[in-house]
Amino acid sequence: MTETARGAVLQAFHEPVAIAAAPIPEPEPGALIARIELAGICGTDIHLSHGHLPIPLPVVLGHEAVGRVARLGPGVERDFTGQPLRVGDAITWTSSIPCGRCHWCVVEGERTLCEQRRVYGINQRFDVFPRLSGGWAEAIYLQPGSAVFKLPAGVTPEQVIALGCAGPTAYHGVVDITGVTPGRTVVVQGSGPVGLAAAMYAHLSGAAKVIVVGGPAARLELARQIGVGDVHLDIFTTTPEARLARVLAETPGGRGADVVLECAGVPAAVAEGIAFARRNGTMLVLGQYTDRGATPINPHLITKKQLTLHGSWAFGERHYLGHLNALPAMAARFDLARLIVRYPLAQVNQAMTDMAGGEVMKPVLTMT
Amino acid sequence: MTETARGAVLQAFHEPVAIAAAPIPEPEPGALIARIELAGICGTDIHLSHGHLPIPLPVVLGHEAVGRVARLGPGVERDFTGQPLRVGDAITWTSSIPCGRCHWCVVEGERTLCEQRRVYGINQRFDVFPRLSGGWAEAIYLQPGSAVFKLPAGVTPEQVIALGCAGPTAYHGVVDITGVTPGRTVVVQGSGPVGLAAAMYAHLSGAAKVIVVGGPAARLELARQIGVGDVHLDIFTTTPEARLARVLAETPGGRGADVVLECAGVPAAVAEGIAFARRNGTMLVLGQYTDRGATPINPHLITKKQLTLHGSWAFGERHYLGHLNALPAMAARFDLARLIVRYPLAQVNQAMTDMAGGEVMKPVLTMT
Amino acid sequence: MTETARGAVLQAFHEPVAIAAAPIPEPEPGALIARIELAGICGTDIHLSHGHLPIPLPVVLGHEAVGRVARLGPGVERDFTGQPLRVGDAITWTSSIPCGRCHWCVVEGERTLCEQRRVYGINQRFDVFPRLSGGWAEAIYLQPGSAVFKLPAGVTPEQVIALGCAGPTAYHGVVDITGVTPGRTVVVQGSGPVGLAAAMYAHLSGAAKVIVVGGPAARLELARQIGVGDVHLDIFTTTPEARLARVLAETPGGRGADVVLECAGVPAAVAEGIAFARRNGTMLVLGQYTDRGATPINPHLITKKQLTLHGSWAFGERHYLGHLNALPAMAARFDLARLIVRYPLAQVNQAMTDMAGGEVMKPVLTMT
Amino acid sequence: MTETARGAVLQAFHEPVAIAAAPIPEPEPGALIARIELAGICGTDIHLSHGHLPIPLPVVLGHEAVGRVARLGPGVERDFTGQPLRVGDAITWTSSIPCGRCHWCVVEGERTLCEQRRVYGINQRFDVFPRLSGGWAEAIYLQPGSAVFKLPAGVTPEQVIALGCAGPTAYHGVVDITGVTPGRTVVVQGSGPVGLAAAMYAHLSGAAKVIVVGGPAARLELARQIGVGDVHLDIFTTTPEARLARVLAETPGGRGADVVLECAGVPAAVAEGIAFARRNGTMLVLGQYTDRGATPINPHLITKKQLTLHGSWAFGERHYLGHLNALPAMAARFDLARLIVRYPLAQVNQAMTDMAGGEVMKPVLTMT
Repeated sequence: MTETARGAVLQAFHEPVAIAAAPIPEPEPGALIARIELAGICGTDIHLSHGHLPIPLPVVLGHEAVGRVARLGPGVERDFTGQPLRVGDAITWTSSIPCGRCHWCVVEGERTLCEQRRVYGINQRFDVFPRLSGGWAEAIYLQPGSAVFKLPAGVTPEQVIALGCAGPTAYHGVVDITGVTPGRTVVVQGSGPVGLAAAMYAHLSGAAKVIVVGGPAARLELARQIGVGDVHLDIFTTTPEARLARVLAETPGGRGADVVLECAGVPAAVAEGIAFARRNGTMLVLGQYTDRGATPINPHLITKKQLTLHGSWAFGERHYLGHLNALPAMAARFDLARLIVRYPLAQVNQAMTDMAGGEVMKPVLTMT
Repeated sequence: MTETARGAVLQAFHEPVAIAAAPIPEPEPGALIARIELAGICGTDIHLSHGHLPIPLPVVLGHEAVGRVARLGPGVERDFTGQPLRVGDAITWTSSIPCGRCHWCVVEGERTLCEQRRVYGINQRFDVFPRLSGGWAEAIYLQPGSAVFKLPAGVTPEQVIALGCAGPTAYHGVVDITGVTPGRTVVVQGSGPVGLAAAMYAHLSGAAKVIVVGGPAARLELARQIGVGDVHLDIFTTTPEARLARVLAETPGGRGADVVLECAGVPAAVAEGIAFARRNGTMLVLGQYTDRGATPINPHLITKKQLTLHGSWAFGERHYLGHLNALPAMAARFDLARLIVRYPLAQVNQAMTDMAGGEVMKPVLTMT
Repeated sequence: MTETARGAVLQAFHEPVAIAAAPIPEPEPGALIARIELAGICGTDIHLSHGHLPIPLPVVLGHEAVGRVARLGPGVERDFTGQPLRVGDAITWTSSIPCGRCHWCVVEGERTLCEQRRVYGINQRFDVFPRLSGGWAEAIYLQPGSAVFKLPAGVTPEQVIALGCAGPTAYHGVVDITGVTPGRTVVVQGSGPVGLAAAMYAHLSGAAKVIVVGGPAARLELARQIGVGDVHLDIFTTTPEARLARVLAETPGGRGADVVLECAGVPAAVAEGIAFARRNGTMLVLGQYTDRGATPINPHLITKKQLTLHGSWAFGERHYLGHLNALPAMAARFDLARLIVRYPLAQVNQAMTDMAGGEVMKPVLTMT
Repeated sequence: MTETARGAVLQAFHEPVAIAAAPIPEPEPGALIARIELAGICGTDIHLSHGHLPIPLPVVLGHEAVGRVARLGPGVERDFTGQPLRVGDAITWTSSIPCGRCHWCVVEGERTLCEQRRVYGINQRFDVFPRLSGGWAEAIYLQPGSAVFKLPAGVTPEQVIALGCAGPTAYHGVVDITGVTPGRTVVVQGSGPVGLAAAMYAHLSGAAKVIVVGGPAARLELARQIGVGDVHLDIFTTTPEARLARVLAETPGGRGADVVLECAGVPAAVAEGIAFARRNGTMLVLGQYTDRGATPINPHLITKKQLTLHGSWAFGERHYLGHLNALPAMAARFDLARLIVRYPLAQVNQAMTDMAGGEVMKPVLTMT
C-alpha cells in the first residue's frame, strides 16, 4: 500500500491553487523524502500564480520549507555539511539544484546564475515523477544533488521559515557581494521580507545606524518592534524631498549613506537610492527581481558620486549555508517568529490573498 | 624689469577667449615656474566656455599641459617622485591641488573628491595672484603642493599631451577601479580621447578583444590606424539592435562582454552598455561628467544580470602617477602623436571650434 | 601669570619616568589645548621606556588619551567631523599627524605609513615647543593638523580609553583590511588589548564563533566575563597539538577557521595561526609590531591552503574615525570599563610595572 | 579487432617508466577519445616518479597534452565553450575532473581545492578501466565531465604545450588572485616554466618593469631571448644582498616592488621575496607546491610593511579557460615554441632525465 501526500497545485494561471494528492515514492540513491512542517509563501509565488514568469504547469508551489527526514535513499547518510542524517531530523534545503556542468556553475562559480537549474516549487511539474517537488505539500521528494541541511543547533523551524528565501537572498546581496562593516550608516529601501532580512544583516554586520525606508505603517511598526532599523521612514506619508532631507540629516556630515540596500522592488526606488548614497558609496540593487521596465535614472550621479552599484540575483548553496551559519546570532537578536502568520494547508488560497494584500509579513503553511 | 607671459583668457561665457599678458612672478618657497610647450584642449574646456559649469572669471583656461622648468622656488629640488629637478627639465603636473585636510582627502583617501581643490585652468582667477594659473599660456605658476613630474624616460611631450587628462581619467576608472585582465572581452563606448584612452588601457591590461562603439567614422578610422580596438562599430551607421547583436556575436558564447567601459558622455549609452554586458559582468560609467539629466534605465537588468557598475570621477595624484608609469608601454604600442593637431596660441579660438565640431581628436596649443 | 601642567617624562631609557612641569602655551591658529582626563598605558610604552624603538628624549609619553577642550586656537571652531567645538567638550584625537605630502599620504592614501608623521607621546620632544605633546600629562597642546573628535553621543571617556590605540588598530586590521562577515568562525590569537579589540570587532561583524587563544588565565577570564570570545584556549596550559585539535573541532567540517586574527606579538604565533586556518581562508598578521626576528614558517602551507595573509600597520585618521563610529555599538555590547585600572599620574611607574607584568589589562592614568 | 595505444607507464617509484599498450575503449556517453600529439613533461612528473606524492600505481603519467578528437562518445557534440566538436579537431583539456558536489566545489567555488578530483596522469590507474588516462600515450580516454577545449583560432599545439600546466597555474595566481596592473614594477622569483608563465602574465597585464630573479644562466638567457623580463638576476652568481640592492634600485623611489611573484619552489625564496616587496605591496606564494619544510621568515615585516601574501593552488576550469582566452595575445608576443624540446615517446626516460637536470625548459613527447 502506497502512502500519499497532499499538496497545493497550481493548475492554471489566475486560478486558485487546488489541493491534490500524489503517492510518496521510494527514494532513489542520493534522494530523500521529507515531511514538510512549515512552508513559506513568498511574493514570487503570487507572481507565479499570475503567470508573470514562464513556468510549466501543473506544479506544486513552494520554494521555502522546513521539514523532517521521513525516508533516506540508499547512500544518504549525511547532510551537506557532513552531519549524520537520521529519520526525524529537522532539515531545510536549497530550493535550486544547479546543473553543475555549465559555464556559470564551473567557470564563474555562480551557481545562482545556472540556467538549467531545477527549482522546487517553480519548474518541477506535478505530473512528472517524482511529482512531490514543491514545498506546499505534506511531503517533498528531495532529488539527488539537493543541498540538505540539518537545522543549526538551537534554531527552530519557525526561525528558519520566518525569513524564507529572503534570508539567503539578503545574505548573498548584503554579506557576500556588498559588505557592511562596523560603524557604517546604511539605508534599506523596502520593508518586506527581503528588506527586513537585509536590515538584519546590516545590524548583524555592525552598522552604526540602519535607516529603513518602506511601508505601510504596520510593516514598519513590526520592524520596530523586533528591533530592525534605527530610523523608519514611511513612503506613504512622506515626500521624496522629505525623505532625502531626513536621510542626509541622519548621516555623518550630511554626506549621505555609506551603503544603500535597495529591496523595494519598485524601479523608481533605484533613483531614490542613488540620491541617498554618499559620494564614494555603495548601493545594492537587490529588489528588482521582476521586470517592470525602465525608470528615469541620472547616470551623471553615478560618475560624479563615484558610486558602485551591485546587482545580486537569488542565491546558491554558498549563500544558503552562509545564512544558516549566521542564523543563530540573528535569531538571538531578533524575534523572527513574530514575522509569521500560520495557515493550514487547506487555507492556502486565503494565505496567498493576505500575502498579496500586504496584510501579513510572512504567511506560513502548516501541514498538521 | 619683469618678464611677462601671454595666455588665453576666458573673460565672459559664450565669447571668444582673448590673449592677454601678465607678469611672471618670482616663485615663492615650494612653487615653480614652468614654460608651457604644449597645452591640450579638452571637451570640458568647451563646456567651461559656455558656462555649463560654475567657474569664476576671468580665467586662463587649460588643465592639460607639458612644459619645462623655468624657475624653481626656494626648497624645490625634486619632483614628486624624488627625481632631481633642474631648470630646463621637461615636466608635467596634476591639474588639481586637493586641500589635504578634508574628509575626502584624509578619511576616504579620495583626493579626486576634494571639494576645496584648486584646479589649474578652471577655478584659479586671472585677476588674482599669481594670475598665470592655466595651461593655455606661455608660462604657469605651479603653486606649492602641486604634484610635478619629470617626463618618464623616453616619453615625449607629444605623447603626454596626446591623451591629456583623458589618460589619468581612464587610468583611474579602468585600472584603479574596474580592472581588466588578460583574456577578457571588453566593450568601450565612445571614441573621443577618454574612449581611446580607456581602450588603450584595456589593450595594455591584456584584453583578448576590445570592441569600440563610437563615431563618427573618422574617429573610428583613426583608432583603427593606431591599433586601438579590434572591432569598431559606428553608432551613426548602425541601429542599436544591430550593435547589440554584433557585440553578442563577438563575445564568448554570445553571453555579452566581460567588461563595458562607458566613455560616451551620452546618458542613453548607459542603458545600451548594460545590454552589452554579460551576466556577472562589470560596467564602468566614466563618461557622464556633465549633468544631462535622467535617461530610462531598466534596473531589473542590474539585478538579473548581477552586474557591478562603477562610477569614477576625474583623478588624483595616484592616478596621474599611475598613468605616467604606464605611459612608456602605452607609447611604445600606440602612435599617440597621431592623435594631436597643433595650433599656435593665437589660433586658440579656431582650435576650440574644431574641437567642438569633433573634427580633430586632440587640438594642442603650441607656445613658440 | 602662565599656567603650567605636569607630565610624566621619559628622560633616559631604562629609568623611571619623572614628573615634570611645563607652561601651557597659548594655542596658535589651528591648535588647541586639552585638559587630559584619562591617559592609557600601552605595551608599546614599555618598549619605548626600554629603548626598543629609536625615539628622541626627553619625551612626555602617552599616545592614548581623552580630555576636554581647555582653549581653542584662532580658527578652531569644529572637530574633524564638523561638529561645533567648545571649551569643556570631551574629546579624543589621533596620535599621529601625517605629513600629508609624501608618497604614502598622497599616492597610496595610507597615512599610517607616512614616515614623517609626528606622534604624540612618542617622537615629540619635551624640551622643544610646545613641550606638552604627550598624553601622560595634565594638558596637551594639539598641533594644527591634529584630527580631534568629540566623543560620540553616549560614549564615556572610560569606554574610549579602555581599548586605547588597540581599538583603531583592530579596526584597521580586522574591519578595513581583513573583513569578518556574519556566520564566520574566527580565531583570535592573543588576549591583550589588541586581541580583545580584534575579538570584539569579530563579534560586532557577526562572527558565528570567536575562539580566543591566549593567556594567562586571568586575561581569558576577564574576556569571558565581558562576553568576548565563545571559546577560550589558554596557551599556558595547553599544548600546540591540543590547541590545533580543539580549533579544528570547533570549526565547520573540521576544516579550520575562516579567519585567523594574530594579535599575539610572538613570532611563533604566525606559524600556529597558519595551521588554524582553513584552506582558502584568511589570516591577519597584526601583532608583530616589534621586530623579534625570524621564526620557522612553512610556506608550502600558504600555497597548498591557498591562504591570504594580510599585514596591517597601526592606523590613520580613517581608522580612528571608523572605530569611533563603531564604538557606541561596541560599548553597548561589552562592558569596556571593566578593562581598566586607574592610577593617579604620580603612580605612573607603578602602573608601568603592572602593565609590564601583565597584571592589569589596561592601566589608565588619571589627572585629578 | 580492437585498436591499441601505447603509453609510458610508471610501475614502481624510482624506476624508469615503461612503454606498455592498452586497448582503446569505445567511448561511453559524455566521453571521447583523443589522439595525443604533444605531451608535456612537468617538474611534478619527476616528483611523482620518485614517490614524493602518494599516487596509485601503475599509472600512465602526463597531465599536460594536446591532441585531436579520434572518437566522440554519444551526446558529445560541443566543447566546453559550446563550439562544435568533430573528429580531427585539435583539442586540449583540463587535467582534473572535480567532483562537483563537495564543499570546495559547491560552497567555496574553488574546484581546484576539491579533494576527490580525478587527475589524468596522476591518480588514474593504468590497470583499471579505461586505462588510457594519462597524457604520455598515443591516446587518452577523456571521461565524462572533462572540460575539453578546441584550440583557440591561430594558436598551435606547440604554443599550448610550451607552458603546459604552468600557464593556467600562473593565470590562477597572477591574474585571478593577485592582479598586476599597467605601470607596476613586478619581481618574479624563478625562471622555470611557472616563473616564465608568471612573468609573461605580468607583461601581458601591462607591468612597467618585470624583474626576473632566477637561474641558471641558460634559462635566463632563454627568457631574455623571447622577451620575458626586463631585468634578469642570476641567483647563482649574485649574493642575496646584491639582489636586494638591485631590486630596490630598479623600483620607483627605491621602495621595492609593487608585486612579487614567487615561483621558485625553494622555501627560502619566500623570505627573500618579502624583502623585495614595498610597503603596502603584494606577494604571491605560488611556487611552494612541494612540502620542503619550514624556513625562517620574519613576520614583523608582514606587519610593518603591511603586506598582503596570497597562496594559489593549481587551477580549475576557470583558470584553464582564462589561460586559453589569453593565449592568442601571449603567443603573439612571446615565441612560446622556443621553450620546447621534442622527444619521441620511446625516449621518455631521457626526456625526464633532461628535465630533472634543468637542461631543457620544457621537454615534450611526440607520438608520431
